[in-house]
Amino acid sequence: MENQKLGRQTFQPGSPPVIIGHGSSAGHKECQGPLRRHFDHTCEDDLFGAKTWEQAESAMQQLALDAALKRAGLHTGDLDLLLAGDLLNQCIGSGYAARTAAVPFFGLYGACSTMGESLALATLLLSGGYGKYAAAVTSSHFCSAERQYRTPLEYGSQRTPTAQWTATASGAVVLTGEVRPGPRVVRVTVGKVVDKGIKDANNMGAAMAPAAYETLKAHFEDTGLSPDYYDLIVTGDLGSLGHEIVTDFFAHDGVKLANYNDCGLILFDREEQDVHAGASGCGCSASVLCGYLLPGLLAGRWKRILFCPTGALHSPTATMQGESIPGICHAIGLEGGK
Amino acid sequence: MENQKLGRQTFQPGSPPVIIGHGSSAGHKECQGPLRRHFDHTCEDDLFGAKTWEQAESAMQQLALDAALKRAGLHTGDLDLLLAGDLLNQCIGSGYAARTAAVPFFGLYGACSTMGESLALATLLLSGGYGKYAAAVTSSHFCSAERQYRTPLEYGSQRTPTAQWTATASGAVVLTGEVRPGPRVVRVTVGKVVDKGIKDANNMGAAMAPAAYETLKAHFEDTGLSPDYYDLIVTGDLGSLGHEIVTDFFAHDGVKLANYNDCGLILFDREEQDVHAGASGCGCSASVLCGYLLPGLLAGRWKRILFCPTGALHSPTATMQGESIPGICHAIGLEGGK
Repeated sequence: MENQKLGRQTFQPGSPPVIIGHGSSAGHKECQGPLRRHFDHTCEDDLFGAKTWEQAESAMQQLALDAALKRAGLHTGDLDLLLAGDLLNQCIGSGYAARTAAVPFFGLYGACSTMGESLALATLLLSGGYGKYAAAVTSSHFCSAERQYRTPLEYGSQRTPTAQWTATASGAVVLTGEVRPGPRVVRVTVGKVVDKGIKDANNMGAAMAPAAYETLKAHFEDTGLSPDYYDLIVTGDLGSLGHEIVTDFFAHDGVKLANYNDCGLILFDREEQDVHAGASGCGCSASVLCGYLLPGLLAGRWKRILFCPTGALHSPTATMQGESIPGICHAIGLEGGK
Repeated sequence: MENQKLGRQTFQPGSPPVIIGHGSSAGHKECQGPLRRHFDHTCEDDLFGAKTWEQAESAMQQLALDAALKRAGLHTGDLDLLLAGDLLNQCIGSGYAARTAAVPFFGLYGACSTMGESLALATLLLSGGYGKYAAAVTSSHFCSAERQYRTPLEYGSQRTPTAQWTATASGAVVLTGEVRPGPRVVRVTVGKVVDKGIKDANNMGAAMAPAAYETLKAHFEDTGLSPDYYDLIVTGDLGSLGHEIVTDFFAHDGVKLANYNDCGLILFDREEQDVHAGASGCGCSASVLCGYLLPGLLAGRWKRILFCPTGALHSPTATMQGESIPGICHAIGLEGGK
């Protein structure tokens, strides 16, 4: 079968790339949540041996990538392409990690949608006939994100009920264009930027939910699949409010999303861990993918997952200038494993 | 012919995508330089009708993309993919411009190499069989870059001799995967991150030159082509010092780069315009490509150009933490036109 575009936004590889390795690293708080036993690397002080939180992000990306490469039986130098991004200004978490990797590198900025964007591009490039192995990597860190986007940690600012907790975590996926057993990326819906006018930087779930809804709707329209085709539909980091909004939007269309969850509701125990509306950050969906979803696909717990990382493309400068928060969401169709 | 990988870093489309539209916008100072008559849009006050410099970048991207689409005879909605990035924190220049475009969007961060990264990805995706039309866009703005990377403009800080002047400019290219007459992207060398330990944020040319050298060397090794195969080899924004370093590195290898120039030396008149080592910024190579190189290819002035945008992947935070400045460079082989 040939590579093709379906409808307006969906791309379907003729020979779907196979995920041959996944790896994760996560901070102390993340390892006290429901996924505690599922991460490859953790660290008591969240510094991962580095001197600063920003450098810790690079270290986390390297640990996650190393774990993914190990599962794939590859060395860094075997990679034809590395696709990575993060939330830090100028994406330094990824840039400095890529300096260590020293392989052909595409830097991405998709905010918290980056695990989706990097997986989408790796899938399309490998199935396009370009290279044998590609890696998709991203990360976020609570401490670097808080001081960059909000207030210094020392300030101890109170958090609103809609606020989410940026995950200190990284995830890495290694894919091959070769025909092999394992979970495959069978289709990709590339998101458009959607902005419904939300201006509250402490309510990311509401800002990103319309983008998730639009991408999911486009995915079902483009492919002709119904939501119950998937055993699990999982958005990136909408949290409780955003999850409710997406569910509500589909209910208005007469569609019940029975099998729908959000990585922001999976990573932490909201009753116990004081994270308000849930988890967020590039590392949220990335670590849930690599620590929970891919192992579940491999074990046969699910057969078909629609993995839909969500991102808010604003900045503190844009917010100060009175701008609303644009969102984006990419949908990645994952199948097989057993 | 099939899509293939050559050597370690080079990708060659079987059916090379064709550039069917190019557009540019540039600020007041840029329109007082040698390329003054070559830009599609300009503006006296560098605000392009917006209220802030950051919003001006989004406006410049839209103007450049509109001009490129007009040349291609297309509407925004015809685009299957939009690939864009810029220098601003969280790439808001591109994010907000993509909100207006409302087509499938991949946000990129490659610093000043973004015109190369976006062209590379558009080329590989279209030739991979994914969609009919893609656009590659980037921008930079002197005023937003200065206050973000260095000091407030009002401070009137003195500039060192190695400093470069961030271009207020944007460039957009529309490509198709269909067989058509016009300039073609025939090969792409994807850069690795290279860091030789330069820590002076006012000496970007020296920081990025080793990456340019490595990518050019890989391009010639991977393809078996010699530098004089190209009528013009042009790096992104190395300026006078970086240009000298690359020339010198090749001289040490016994290779004379006779046909080598740099967009940072083309955009401004260094004698008249007080820009020290030359121009820089994503908009530098983008506007020189769209205002000068592509029109030159179309007019038959050159037949083969190797276009090599260069980027520095640091941030003010990384610099304050004592980090050196990693560089990257992607090489884009452009041919034909007549």
